[in-house]
Amino acid sequence: MVVGYQTYLDLIPELLGGKEVVSSQMMKEVDRARQCLALAADGKNVALVSGGDPGIYAMAGLVFEMARERGDGVKIKVIPGIAALNACAARLGAPLMHDFAAVSLSDLLTPWELIEKRLAAAAAADFVIALYNPRSKKRTEHIVRAREIILAHRSPDTPVGIVTGATRENETVTLTTLGRMLEAEIGMQSCVLIGNASTFTWQGYMVTPRGYSGKYQFVGADR
Amino acid sequence: MVVGYQTYLDLIPELLGGKEVVSSQMMKEVDRARQCLALAADGKNVALVSGGDPGIYAMAGLVFEMARERGDGVKIKVIPGIAALNACAARLGAPLMHDFAAVSLSDLLTPWELIEKRLAAAAAADFVIALYNPRSKKRTEHIVRAREIILAHRSPDTPVGIVTGATRENETVTLTTLGRMLEAEIGMQSCVLIGNASTFTWQGYMVTPRGYSGKYQFVGADR
Repeated sequence: MVVGYQTYLDLIPELLGGKEVVSSQMMKEVDRARQCLALAADGKNVALVSGGDPGIYAMAGLVFEMARERGDGVKIKVIPGIAALNACAARLGAPLMHDFAAVSLSDLLTPWELIEKRLAAAAAADFVIALYNPRSKKRTEHIVRAREIILAHRSPDTPVGIVTGATRENETVTLTTLGRMLEAEIGMQSCVLIGNASTFTWQGYMVTPRGYSGKYQFVGADR
Repeated sequence: MVVGYQTYLDLIPELLGGKEVVSSQMMKEVDRARQCLALAADGKNVALVSGGDPGIYAMAGLVFEMARERGDGVKIKVIPGIAALNACAARLGAPLMHDFAAVSLSDLLTPWELIEKRLAAAAAADFVIALYNPRSKKRTEHIVRAREIILAHRSPDTPVGIVTGATRENETVTLTTLGRMLEAEIGMQSCVLIGNASTFTWQGYMVTPRGYSGKYQFVGADR
């Protein structure tokens, strides 16, 4: 049987035919994971559908945490998927060609001080930075503060890509800079990618070079 | 037409039927990208096949870098995929549930000093760390030094997962610790995931908690 948030199930009708489906409109993550484990403990073969990659900031960890608490020996297998990170990078060009750090700006389950520490560390060591959960209705100041912290280490001209609703019908892609990024629309469904010191833009793409051009001559006699 | 390294093309025979295929046994990345762009400039519709996600430490960036140099206005679209990061995390359980940093230990195109700086920053700020290119025949000391740097900030009991040849027939998965990780086999096809201070192991899985258990009571009356 298949368990999932209705919004995600609506995206995969072709996979649900002939299967028992438990959709949840507003059920919380914890309740959904608990329900799956209870059904599996009863002997059901349960697929829990997650958005993006269940293994990156998503449901997989919660299922393991709860399974450990319950201790009823259910077997769990994680199927990887395209995380927001992968999808947003592809839409922007090639921003993740070099070392990168992913940081969630949600302080619902993480102390804000630790989030600030991670932002500063990633910025100082010139990681490309992917910001998850950059802004919600209640948390509008986190992205402002995150930009300030990164700006202490990086030029205002640093390319910034913002992808909202990646791969969905309402997808939007914005290419801007660290200096001007707050003028763009950033919401719950956005992922914000901040370039490193070498990231450049070209014809609407955001590209972080790997370093080849210093090592190889690109344009040879065979052109 | 389809261009790619023969090893990757062998994995997708069902996608190559009826198409013109240019495989390269040993051709270097730069030559392969150059060939694709030359064919596209001649009006061909070319798919360049990459292992993992072309957008994460892979071919996409090189193609953009070379296209910019050539300046012949070829259109490029990146299709995201399952990167080593996604696949290895899934095989290990759920190690990437919280902020993480990806660092390549290859100094072929990056100064080693910068790699050390990134490792220290990621370790000090308690990021889960994914090490790409951890060891090759020529570079056997980088992983030794990387472990030292991380060990200065993290307990030797920290869980470490090593996945080699993820999703391939020869896939191996090893769960160890920061203290003992060098006893395990680590090679060219390995990705090494190092937990943060909260990462735990349970029944052969490696799990980084998101923080729910501090916030919610898992085991309710409905069990």
